[in-house]
Amino acid sequence: MRPFGARRDRLRELLAAADVDALLVTDLLDVRYLTGFTGSNAALLLAADGDARTRFCTDGRYVTQSGTEVPDLELLVDRSSVLATARRVIELGIERLGFESDVVTVDGHAAIAEAVGGSVELVRAPGLTRRLRAVKDDVEIAALRAACAVADAALADLLAAGGLAAGRTERAVAIDLEMRMRGHGATGPAFETILAAGAHSAIPHHRPTDGELRRGDLVKIDFGALVDGYHSDTTRTFVLGPAAGWQRDLHEVVARAQRAGCDALAPGVALSTVDAAARDVIVAAGLGERFVHGLGHGVGLEIHEAPMFSATGPGELAAGMVVTVEPGVYLEGRGGVRIEDTLVVAEGGPEPLTLAPHGLVEV
Amino acid sequence: MRPFGARRDRLRELLAAADVDALLVTDLLDVRYLTGFTGSNAALLLAADGDARTRFCTDGRYVTQSGTEVPDLELLVDRSSVLATARRVIELGIERLGFESDVVTVDGHAAIAEAVGGSVELVRAPGLTRRLRAVKDDVEIAALRAACAVADAALADLLAAGGLAAGRTERAVAIDLEMRMRGHGATGPAFETILAAGAHSAIPHHRPTDGELRRGDLVKIDFGALVDGYHSDTTRTFVLGPAAGWQRDLHEVVARAQRAGCDALAPGVALSTVDAAARDVIVAAGLGERFVHGLGHGVGLEIHEAPMFSATGPGELAAGMVVTVEPGVYLEGRGGVRIEDTLVVAEGGPEPLTLAPHGLVEV
Repeated sequence: MRPFGARRDRLRELLAAADVDALLVTDLLDVRYLTGFTGSNAALLLAADGDARTRFCTDGRYVTQSGTEVPDLELLVDRSSVLATARRVIELGIERLGFESDVVTVDGHAAIAEAVGGSVELVRAPGLTRRLRAVKDDVEIAALRAACAVADAALADLLAAGGLAAGRTERAVAIDLEMRMRGHGATGPAFETILAAGAHSAIPHHRPTDGELRRGDLVKIDFGALVDGYHSDTTRTFVLGPAAGWQRDLHEVVARAQRAGCDALAPGVALSTVDAAARDVIVAAGLGERFVHGLGHGVGLEIHEAPMFSATGPGELAAGMVVTVEPGVYLEGRGGVRIEDTLVVAEGGPEPLTLAPHGLVEV
Repeated sequence: MRPFGARRDRLRELLAAADVDALLVTDLLDVRYLTGFTGSNAALLLAADGDARTRFCTDGRYVTQSGTEVPDLELLVDRSSVLATARRVIELGIERLGFESDVVTVDGHAAIAEAVGGSVELVRAPGLTRRLRAVKDDVEIAALRAACAVADAALADLLAAGGLAAGRTERAVAIDLEMRMRGHGATGPAFETILAAGAHSAIPHHRPTDGELRRGDLVKIDFGALVDGYHSDTTRTFVLGPAAGWQRDLHEVVARAQRAGCDALAPGVALSTVDAAARDVIVAAGLGERFVHGLGHGVGLEIHEAPMFSATGPGELAAGMVVTVEPGVYLEGRGGVRIEDTLVVAEGGPEPLTLAPHGLVEV
């Protein structure tokens, strides 16, 4: 069942509130969400009154592909997909045209204004499709579940094969894990794998080096799989060999904070409340200043998307949002621990999509 | 030798012409080019009069990393890197602030205007860093050469190992090739590998499927390696088994067009002239309508960047530009051929960075 028509209809409800005749959708992921098109050049003119006046535009490279992916919309073929679409506005009888003012650049806006002509009013309409995208439909949750399952399977394989071992380089282990994700069906990694051993684990976004893992190291692995355009996001932190007391203590604090954050996930709860639920545990342990980032973020067609957890930001959760919960504590020069899951917000409690064990694993 | 200070000084020459006191650099790749920072959140306020009033901003996750990557600029730490930087403008005595109007969104512009305050004049300054980036310096050409060598080695390995064989799926061969690039030192593929067999080869940007390669198929492989943030881009088209006459003819036309395009590369030559040199060969063969895209593009920190070859666009080549030349002919339902190299434009003739053999290989 193609979900794209239903998504366009949900967007039309927002267009009515924005009082525009149509929305010029130029963000490629928004276009993908609304049409199913996965190529690298496209624009969508979404008419508020239905698909008859709606137009999809891509360039010559994608004519065959768009025939398969977007069989239900009238196609324009032009290399300048945004401007070619904008030029059709008058003949389609559109007078008030919304545009994604959080996506269109200042220069892009000037070019669109010229293309539509002076009689059409351009109306700022930021974030409408992104607002819809924050709440996932069943097709999306299925893709996210598949992506998370691929990541889980790859990590389990890596551990079972003894792939996390002293003497291997960070880079070699990261590649090993990514290849296992590919083998399980990922089209690629969801982002550049963070594999950080020893003191590197205290760098929140460390890039793997040719440095070797050593016995006694904390090893932080933040990784994800890309499946059907959807991203998974997991972090686990291991110890190579028996954990030292401080490593065990650090892991225990972060694990408690992570559980508290997950337990706080429910429809209607403020994003700042969820952040606080986890952050309070770390602050109480005297480590508040070592938790230097937000608690987590929405995940879907982008690895980071709405909603964003922060200590002070506005907004609340809704059923169907898919978010990460990922507190971390970083002791510069020594090591850090982060634990992260991807979960679906739901009535009756969140559904975790990443299922790798949470306890401290000594490998 | 860190090239970043010299790049900032070259940009300052353009700022003088734009008559601004500073440029707010918000495009992450532009920031990387000018500072060496490789994280996912940053802004740079580049003062026209030198580094003393220049500021670099990133968030708490990247403090350690930026200490290593950007030791030579004063650091601000803030999650809202662009706005935090903009707020410093008055205290730094900046009155005319350039911004990347081809990058900053309409909403972003409004937020920056509020952050800088009413006394600062925001001046559109599109494409300045991108203009510099179109001509590569020695550090960049070395990275591109390394990326292209990785791609060449991986393709040679794939062929030597019999990896391109009937019965394997498009997806399996694509993964195989990507893993070999990783093994040779790529941090990842430069883009989603296009591996298209049989009729799929007639789709310019086909995504690999679970369909099997069959004897007699044309197999088009468009792939690249990412090394130090720089992208390689190669396409070769093979035949599984002895080539049919039409396959051989198609390959021969495209190979001739590709050679003509490469031969036309020289400093000072119009981009449209290079496009025509290749296109004319295909038109003369009666296949002009089956060559549905531009001849090629610049490649560097982005897989597609300036300059762009097209039949009608403006602009000319300069020494140090690195470009692809990639004509293709696509016969819907039957198959297509594309041949692509990445080359450095230079006095005395272009230097090809991708060196895989060009002849029709029957595997």
